Amino acid sequence: MLNFAVGPVMMGQSTLNIGLEQIPYFRTENFSAVMKQNERLFKSFLNAPENARAVFMTGSGTASMEAAVINTLTKNDRALIVNGGSFGARFCEICSVYEIPYTQINCDCGKTLTDAQLLPFENKGYTAFIVNLCETSTGVLYDLRLISDFCKRNGLLLIVDAVSAFLCDSLDMSKRQIDVVITGSQKALALAPGLSLMCFSQRAVDRILANEQKSFYFDLKKYLKDGERGQTPFTPAVGIILQLNNRFKEIEAKGGAAAEIAAARHKAEYFRAAIKDLPLEIFSDNPSNAVTSLTLNDKSKSAYKLFELLMNEYGIWLCPNGGDLKDKVFRVGHMGALNDADYDLLVDALKKGLRSEKIKK
Amino acid sequence: MLNFAVGPVMMGQSTLNIGLEQIPYFRTENFSAVMKQNERLFKSFLNAPENARAVFMTGSGTASMEAAVINTLTKNDRALIVNGGSFGARFCEICSVYEIPYTQINCDCGKTLTDAQLLPFENKGYTAFIVNLCETSTGVLYDLRLISDFCKRNGLLLIVDAVSAFLCDSLDMSKRQIDVVITGSQKALALAPGLSLMCFSQRAVDRILANEQKSFYFDLKKYLKDGERGQTPFTPAVGIILQLNNRFKEIEAKGGAAAEIAAARHKAEYFRAAIKDLPLEIFSDNPSNAVTSLTLNDKSKSAYKLFELLMNEYGIWLCPNGGDLKDKVFRVGHMGALNDADYDLLVDALKKGLRSEKIKK
Repeated sequence: MLNFAVGPVMMGQSTLNIGLEQIPYFRTENFSAVMKQNERLFKSFLNAPENARAVFMTGSGTASMEAAVINTLTKNDRALIVNGGSFGARFCEICSVYEIPYTQINCDCGKTLTDAQLLPFENKGYTAFIVNLCETSTGVLYDLRLISDFCKRNGLLLIVDAVSAFLCDSLDMSKRQIDVVITGSQKALALAPGLSLMCFSQRAVDRILANEQKSFYFDLKKYLKDGERGQTPFTPAVGIILQLNNRFKEIEAKGGAAAEIAAARHKAEYFRAAIKDLPLEIFSDNPSNAVTSLTLNDKSKSAYKLFELLMNEYGIWLCPNGGDLKDKVFRVGHMGALNDADYDLLVDALKKGLRSEKIKK
Repeated sequence: MLNFAVGPVMMGQSTLNIGLEQIPYFRTENFSAVMKQNERLFKSFLNAPENARAVFMTGSGTASMEAAVINTLTKNDRALIVNGGSFGARFCEICSVYEIPYTQINCDCGKTLTDAQLLPFENKGYTAFIVNLCETSTGVLYDLRLISDFCKRNGLLLIVDAVSAFLCDSLDMSKRQIDVVITGSQKALALAPGLSLMCFSQRAVDRILANEQKSFYFDLKKYLKDGERGQTPFTPAVGIILQLNNRFKEIEAKGGAAAEIAAARHKAEYFRAAIKDLPLEIFSDNPSNAVTSLTLNDKSKSAYKLFELLMNEYGIWLCPNGGDLKDKVFRVGHMGALNDADYDLLVDALKKGLRSEKIKK
C-alpha cells in the first residue's frame, strides 16, 4: 500500500531496519546518552533557547497536548484557544476537564486566523494562547508571526501544537518566543506511532515546577528531573526512541530542519501543481506543507467513497475526514518517505477515481 | 546482548519481522477487525466473563494503572492497597493525586501477604482492593486466592495489576472475580514497549460509565465506545497492536495462556535449579514465574556492580534494582524469547562474575 495519510506515514528504510532489532534494556548510560542527544537535536531543530527542555512522552500526540496544558496552566490562567477544527476543539475539552478558564476563537473550517479576529482580545487579561499551528483536520496553517506578535504585545504564554507542522512548516521557538511545542512520532518524523515530544522554554519550565500535580503519569516535574540524567520516570517506548535518534542524526547530516521543511514544501507544491486540472479544489485558504485538504467540485460525489475506491482498487491510502466533512473533504499528506513518482501514481489514480460512478453519494 | 531484564524483553522473530514492515493507515475495517480479535483473545487468555471489555492504551503500564484507578474509583471509595515495593507505592501516589481515600497494607520487601494482615480490614467499609499480583521490584507473587476470597466476602472491587504476572502466573478473571486487569506490551507479551492493556468486568465498566471525567486522554468512556467498532479515540501504537495480534494468534495456536504460563514456569524452575550451588539467595518468599530476585551471600559485594560486570564483560543484561535495594538485590527475568541454553550462558557468567573482585562495594 502507498500511504498518503497524515499519520502513520511511510517510514524510511533505516527506520524500518531498527524495528527489526531487539530492544535494549534502557536503564543504562548508553540509553541515557541517546536520550540526551535526542533532546539536544530536537532543541536545535526548533531553534530553542539554550535553557529550554525537551520531554519525551510515551503516548499519542493527545497525551502531550494534555500534559503540556495541565502542567503549564492553572485555574488562575485565562487561555485563548484557536478552534478551527477537531484538534482545536480538543484543547477546549482538555481545559474544560481541568477547569482552566478559556475563550475560544472560532475559525471557519479551513480558514486562517486574521488580525481582526485577535483585535477584541488585546489587553483583556489573557495569560496564555493555544494554537494547532497546522489544524490537521483541514490542513490550514495559522499565521505564526501574527500570533507571536500578539502574544509578545500581551505577554502571553504561547503553546504551539505542531504535531503535523514540525519539520513541514517554519517553526522557530526563539524568534517567535514560543513557550511550548508539541509534536508526535508518526508525522513528519516518520516513525512508528506511540511517542510524543514536547519542548519547553525556561518560562514554561518555571510554570511546570510551580504547578500543583494534577496527574501521576502526566506529571512533567518527574520527566524534567529524570531527563537531566537522560532517563524517564516510566518505561519509555524504547524502540521508537532509538528510531528517533537515528532519524534526528539523519536530519542533522542532511542540513537540519530547513532541509526537511524544503522537502515537505516540494512534495506539497509538486502535488498541488499536478492536480491543477483535476475537478478538485484546495479546501484551506493557507495550506500547510504537511497536508493538502481537497473538496470535489462535483457535489454529487463523496470524498469518503473516493478514499474507499483508491484503497480497494489502487492500493493507495488517502486520508479521509470524519464528522460533517466526511463526504466533503479528503486529505493528501506530504509527510514521510514519499517521492515524485509516488505522487504521479496518486494523481493517476485520482484522475480515474474521480471519473468513477462508484463514488456517487 | 542477551537480555534477562524484566522489560523490554527478548522478542520472537515473528514479532521483530513486523517491526520491519510499513505501518498501515488504521481508520479502516481491516484494522478494526484486528482490534476486535485482540479484544476477544485477550479476554479468552484471562478467562474473562462474556461481557467484559478490553481497552488498549498507548502508554507505559503506569498510564493504564492511572487510567484504571481514576475511571473505576471516586472520592467516595475506600481502597485497600498492597504496598510491598515501588509498584505498590505507585498506586498509593495515584490515589493521593486524585484524593481517592486509601489505606495501604505494607508488606516487607519480598514478603507475601498473609491472612493475618487482611484480618483487621474485614467488614470495615472498604470498597476496592488494589494489588500488583507480581510486585516486579522484588518478584514476589501475592496470593490471589487469599485476596480474591477476601474481596468476595467483603464485596470489594478487585483491581489486579498483572503487568509482569500476565502469561507468567495463573490469572483467571471469572474464577477470582477480578474486576480490572492491567498489563503491558513489553513483559511476557514480549513486544516493543509503548502499549498497555486493560480488561474490565461488567461491574468495572458500569463504574467507568458512571464516573465523572478526570482526564481527557485517560477518559475510558471514549475508549469503550470507540472500541465497540474496533477503534481508539487517539492514534494508537499501530505497530505494537499488529505485533500483539500476531503474538495473540501464536499463543492461541500453542494452547492459550496455560501453555505460556507453563513455559515461564519452566524457565524459572530451570534457572533456580541451576543456581542452587551459587552464593546467592532468592529474595522473595513466594517468587513469581516472571522473575527471580536474588541477593548475594557475600555482603561485601554489590548487586549493581554485578549487573555492570555482566553487561560490560559478558554481553548480558541482568535487571538491577534501584533505591535502597540497589547494591543488595538484582533480578533475572523469565519473560520473552529465552531458552535453556540462554540460561546456561547466564549461569556460567554469574559463576565467574560472583568470584570477581570487581564487584566489591
